[in-house]
Amino acid sequence: RMLGRVLCTVLLVGALPSPAGASQGHISVVLLGATGDLAKKYLWQGLFQLYMDQVSSGHSFTFHGAALAAVEPGQRLMFDVLKKLSCPPDEPPNRCAVLKDQFLKLSQYHQLQTAENYTALNREIETLLGQEGLREAGRIFYFSVPPFAYTEIARHINSSCRPPAGAWLRVVLEKPFGHDLPSAQQLAAQLAGFFREEEMFRVDHYLGKQAVAHILPFRDQNRQFLDPIWNQHHVERVEVVLKETVDAKGRTSFYEQYGVIRDVLQNHLTEALMFLIMELPANVSSAQEVVQHKLQAFQSLWGLERSSAVLGQYQAYDSHVQEELQEAPGYVSTTPTFAGVLIRSRSLRWDGVPFLLTSGKALDERVGYARVLFRNRAYCTQSGTLRDAGHSQCKPKQIIFYFGHGALQTPAVLVSRNLFQPVMPKDSWKEAEARPDLHIFGQPLSDFYTYSPVKERDAYSVLISNIYHGRKDFFITTENLLASWAFWTPLLDSTSRQPPRLYPGGVENQHLLDFEMVSGGVAFTLPEPAELLSPAGHTPSDFRAIQSRFRQSPLVSAWAEELISQLASHMEEAALSSVARSGQFHLALSGGSSPAGLFQRLARHHFSFPWQHTHVWLVDERCVPLTDSQSNFQGLHRHLLQHVRLPYFNIHPMPVHLNRRLCVEEDGGAQLYAQDIVALVANASFDLVLLGVGTDGHTASLFPRSHHGLDGAPTVVLTESPVKPHQRMSLSLPLINRARQVFVLVLGRGKHDITTLLSRVGHEPSKWPISGVSPSSGQLVWYMDYEALLG
Amino acid sequence: RMLGRVLCTVLLVGALPSPAGASQGHISVVLLGATGDLAKKYLWQGLFQLYMDQVSSGHSFTFHGAALAAVEPGQRLMFDVLKKLSCPPDEPPNRCAVLKDQFLKLSQYHQLQTAENYTALNREIETLLGQEGLREAGRIFYFSVPPFAYTEIARHINSSCRPPAGAWLRVVLEKPFGHDLPSAQQLAAQLAGFFREEEMFRVDHYLGKQAVAHILPFRDQNRQFLDPIWNQHHVERVEVVLKETVDAKGRTSFYEQYGVIRDVLQNHLTEALMFLIMELPANVSSAQEVVQHKLQAFQSLWGLERSSAVLGQYQAYDSHVQEELQEAPGYVSTTPTFAGVLIRSRSLRWDGVPFLLTSGKALDERVGYARVLFRNRAYCTQSGTLRDAGHSQCKPKQIIFYFGHGALQTPAVLVSRNLFQPVMPKDSWKEAEARPDLHIFGQPLSDFYTYSPVKERDAYSVLISNIYHGRKDFFITTENLLASWAFWTPLLDSTSRQPPRLYPGGVENQHLLDFEMVSGGVAFTLPEPAELLSPAGHTPSDFRAIQSRFRQSPLVSAWAEELISQLASHMEEAALSSVARSGQFHLALSGGSSPAGLFQRLARHHFSFPWQHTHVWLVDERCVPLTDSQSNFQGLHRHLLQHVRLPYFNIHPMPVHLNRRLCVEEDGGAQLYAQDIVALVANASFDLVLLGVGTDGHTASLFPRSHHGLDGAPTVVLTESPVKPHQRMSLSLPLINRARQVFVLVLGRGKHDITTLLSRVGHEPSKWPISGVSPSSGQLVWYMDYEALLG
Repeated sequence: RMLGRVLCTVLLVGALPSPAGASQGHISVVLLGATGDLAKKYLWQGLFQLYMDQVSSGHSFTFHGAALAAVEPGQRLMFDVLKKLSCPPDEPPNRCAVLKDQFLKLSQYHQLQTAENYTALNREIETLLGQEGLREAGRIFYFSVPPFAYTEIARHINSSCRPPAGAWLRVVLEKPFGHDLPSAQQLAAQLAGFFREEEMFRVDHYLGKQAVAHILPFRDQNRQFLDPIWNQHHVERVEVVLKETVDAKGRTSFYEQYGVIRDVLQNHLTEALMFLIMELPANVSSAQEVVQHKLQAFQSLWGLERSSAVLGQYQAYDSHVQEELQEAPGYVSTTPTFAGVLIRSRSLRWDGVPFLLTSGKALDERVGYARVLFRNRAYCTQSGTLRDAGHSQCKPKQIIFYFGHGALQTPAVLVSRNLFQPVMPKDSWKEAEARPDLHIFGQPLSDFYTYSPVKERDAYSVLISNIYHGRKDFFITTENLLASWAFWTPLLDSTSRQPPRLYPGGVENQHLLDFEMVSGGVAFTLPEPAELLSPAGHTPSDFRAIQSRFRQSPLVSAWAEELISQLASHMEEAALSSVARSGQFHLALSGGSSPAGLFQRLARHHFSFPWQHTHVWLVDERCVPLTDSQSNFQGLHRHLLQHVRLPYFNIHPMPVHLNRRLCVEEDGGAQLYAQDIVALVANASFDLVLLGVGTDGHTASLFPRSHHGLDGAPTVVLTESPVKPHQRMSLSLPLINRARQVFVLVLGRGKHDITTLLSRVGHEPSKWPISGVSPSSGQLVWYMDYEALLG
Repeated sequence: RMLGRVLCTVLLVGALPSPAGASQGHISVVLLGATGDLAKKYLWQGLFQLYMDQVSSGHSFTFHGAALAAVEPGQRLMFDVLKKLSCPPDEPPNRCAVLKDQFLKLSQYHQLQTAENYTALNREIETLLGQEGLREAGRIFYFSVPPFAYTEIARHINSSCRPPAGAWLRVVLEKPFGHDLPSAQQLAAQLAGFFREEEMFRVDHYLGKQAVAHILPFRDQNRQFLDPIWNQHHVERVEVVLKETVDAKGRTSFYEQYGVIRDVLQNHLTEALMFLIMELPANVSSAQEVVQHKLQAFQSLWGLERSSAVLGQYQAYDSHVQEELQEAPGYVSTTPTFAGVLIRSRSLRWDGVPFLLTSGKALDERVGYARVLFRNRAYCTQSGTLRDAGHSQCKPKQIIFYFGHGALQTPAVLVSRNLFQPVMPKDSWKEAEARPDLHIFGQPLSDFYTYSPVKERDAYSVLISNIYHGRKDFFITTENLLASWAFWTPLLDSTSRQPPRLYPGGVENQHLLDFEMVSGGVAFTLPEPAELLSPAGHTPSDFRAIQSRFRQSPLVSAWAEELISQLASHMEEAALSSVARSGQFHLALSGGSSPAGLFQRLARHHFSFPWQHTHVWLVDERCVPLTDSQSNFQGLHRHLLQHVRLPYFNIHPMPVHLNRRLCVEEDGGAQLYAQDIVALVANASFDLVLLGVGTDGHTASLFPRSHHGLDGAPTVVLTESPVKPHQRMSLSLPLINRARQVFVLVLGRGKHDITTLLSRVGHEPSKWPISGVSPSSGQLVWYMDYEALLG
């Protein structure tokens, strides 16, 4: 009631510029968690800024703070915050004082705990608007509450607080949005039961940071300069970095669950990276185009592996956790407070360019930036210092989006003077003043064109303004969120048990957290100092690969990832020694899911594999067209062949598709393949055959209780599989047994039964074809992961 | 006679350490051109050094200076030089004085002009040895004479001065060894008529420079450190540089014929580069292994093109030439005195790594070095200066073989401290003293492990010692020489008419000679300043490409290289627009020699070509196996496919080889190909068909006076060529005419007659199949070079 009168008064204040023409309608803003930290620090100030900016927009506003506390203490707490709202320096003090007075009058506290509370809020809004004769434009519900409360609140809003038809609903959600892909999917599914996608505004406050928000406009406005150089041929690396000096003290209950990757990398740094690497939409203001291009950029990334990251933890973290979470003194956390991650893209544009994401607490300085470093493509004939050295083509060339803090202490966009003078919007960015003593990334500031915002704005003010304007491109859509979690979750899973490197914190870290790229991953540059070693006991990653024997042949066993890495190395050794011996390497590969990881490993980590001299053959094939997704060759092509440089003539798919039909005996495909082998492979003896084992003991496409290919001549045969597609083509057992080396790869718990069985039986190929693999003058090696071996 | 007595006296001097045991035999050294510049400056001193080093080796020596001048003045001139021979600082002055006296006594002047002179010399040597009862070990003939005199002298030595059986002959030759590949071949063939390969020692004095000579030993002794990093994944670039401050004044009669590429790059810098990039032989002291690996390295290099080099000429050069060569005042030379050249290798090890060779006269400093710069693969988490900064992984990492002069003023080997501490032979290299103020390549010298020779030796002393020891790995074999000329000659040819950029000389050059890598080539960084533009008139390279019409269709014409570059760009545009439109680009390509240059251009310069979405088809094929060198597909694979990333499924060779036989009607290869086209290419309409024209007017494999494929259905046909191999498979004319675009490429003077004819005739495909090319709803464009168009 009181609010109604105030609103009326405010709307009639003659001193204010009155809205041009009719009212654009009323907007109710509900801030849930109105007395919490975030609200105190940023959100109320952001709402006040919105009011100051939009008071003449034609919209009228009311602001409803809400929390679980009863009206009396809640109201007091809230107004304590509101009284402290500050006036921005660019606002005339008189106007601001008047507006602040109005803002306080337009704000009201509500207890929102029960369903009735929500119904009452809705009724109040309706009554007020009815009394004032105002059309409702929309309602904003800002969730500044812990995520476990989301579903409950969402249910109440959906059932009791939706605005009438014609007015919009916007709900604003704060991270964390889940903990990994499954939990994020679950949360997203729950929210989707209450809100439509366009009603949800998920905040990543980095998207409100001026330097981040300007990445896409910068790329758009400087297309003429960037088009030729924004690619793998010109860019040496991309770095996205957030360094903090603070530690996690006081926040460990949150931090211990999340860690630096979930807290910073999965959201803030990833979003900034995406703005840098996505294909530039024709219209960078179209939220839909931007999100589509962002999703494509996620699709183009190589999956992360354990070796993609280095993790650290400041030394005092455990004691902070023990203290705040009442853990026992011996408690050891593996939660990382520092991470450096190498991300790579497969896209034509970025193939081969390293993207380095780094963040940590308790570091030497507070700074955040996204930095694109270009290759030095110049040769400077004259040495020595030249006057116009800032333009020298031999100085580093970079573009930096400086988020804030650090040496500059302001957001900024920096472009090396030897690159180009960028186009910047004059109304919002201005050239920064010269600061002769300031160096940035080792160069004097005068080496750069440097721009800072005309008016520095807090990220939350920017975001609240964008919520008001309905600019969804400043928020994280569900698809975007799930794509990001899908990308990060494998790394989180594979590093969850890995002890991070301990670091002292601050400048004492010295070179301890420096890391470098090595064979497709990253590793700390310095070895771990003994005195800082984690006191944690053995974790599974500490197991060395086991070397033993299985069925009288050598056995290599380890966890799957380590096993595959060993197998790939052994294959490269075999290839190099074969090429040294004979100039060629004839490799016969099996299809299926187990080798896919191996193929990826070979493509990504084995740059010295002699592909130019390697012939790739198929061990077996399904009778489907080669481009069919079920084709073994198709998988081999997708995971390996398209990433390496084999001569076309060295690729030997099985001829299952002849005369436009599949595996017809009369077309003689098997004979053709056998003839090719005889023609090209000396003595029809492959240098290396890679096999797998089925749960029924089959190998290649040689199945139990069928005599096809189990004995007789070393040749190629058509066989029948008990599972679809039934028709197969396969090397015969006698042909396999002519090989110099046979490696059998067995992965996963599902294979434990058959491996147990195989460890007991003898040579019975008609029951278990794999038991017949026994190279007559070659070597057999088993590669089994711990799950297959130990169950 | 006098010499005989002297020799006897010297051999009996008791004060000298006498040879252990029996004499190793006598060596006669004949220096031809004994009074010339090189002899004065280096060679006599080198021979004296040899004598000092080997006087106790068991060999006895005589030294025969020879020239065209009569004995009287020649002898005086020569002894004037000999008297000035200096004693090296590490030699005890007394010993040196005695040895110098002996050396003068053992030296004698000979006039060598006529056949009789050579016979007389031979007789003198024989007589002397007979008198002294000495066995002859060998004879060294050092050619310090202009190359035009080589053949004549070689003939005389061969016919009159060969030592007796059991003694060796070594002839030492100074560059220039020819002027380009044909002249070098001719000279080599002439010399081969007189000397065996093992008798010839071609000097490149860079191979005697201590830092150059140590490249291979360094790589060998540091294998453990270099093996993992000496490749494309770690090396960012390789630079081999010789900068001079002097100009060509006084040498223009030589220089105007040769220029900087022939004078320095083809020999000195190339040899240093080869030591860096060759695969390391198992035994680096084996001359045979070294030369084999060097030849393989030459084979791995991409050919040079005009765009591979930037050329310059110091401004005063023309006036120096006018003055010294009595040219008219308006004379304009295009001889380059500065060159920067980009070389690339196709090898697995070096693919993608730029090798930059640079040399020039009248530059700002005198310095020479070969420098391997490694990529920065590290991220340094801590900013700011750290005490042990020399080890920081974020500082540049490099290995430098410093030839001499420059800041260091001594030969040196430098290795960044953040790389590794190298293994160096302690007897010949020592750690250099600290020089706190010295910076090298922008870094303090303390950032490097720096080694300099224990004993600095002149290159000629080193080489003369190696001639004495028969170490052929320090010299240029005929194969090596011809490989180098084969590599450089195309660049020399293609730039011979190109006006070099003029530069003022010295420090005034500023950034004028800086250059950078752009799309596979190099270009000066700064535009040419107007006031320095060459006054030379139009040269052929100034012609713009002509846009006109031919047979009612658009015609693009230019010199061949420019034409191919335009055609490649147009193809990329067609591909990009087709992929944007339909997601695919169906490209049908012809074989033969004309497109080879085009294919190479596409592979090397068109990084943004959408290969992933391109299907490559063949316009026609010869009925030979695909791996046959005559196969069109084989050429396409060699020049294009093996260098780009097309999915395997997108490559469509013609099925000329089915059922192990070639183009048999019943095997239905043509029908299979037609069916593939119908299945994959929408409406059987290729996006682009590239054709050529034969001198008989044939195109694709559609020949005059044969109706096969000229009319009827749009299909694939077997045809008969008038030339071998007769059997062909070809797209039919109606199928070609369904294409959206058809480009016809015609190159060379040999095509002038047929193009003239075609400009006059109408649509007569049975006489001239090319005249039937007329896409029914597509576009036809002719690409003809000036030679084909204008004759």
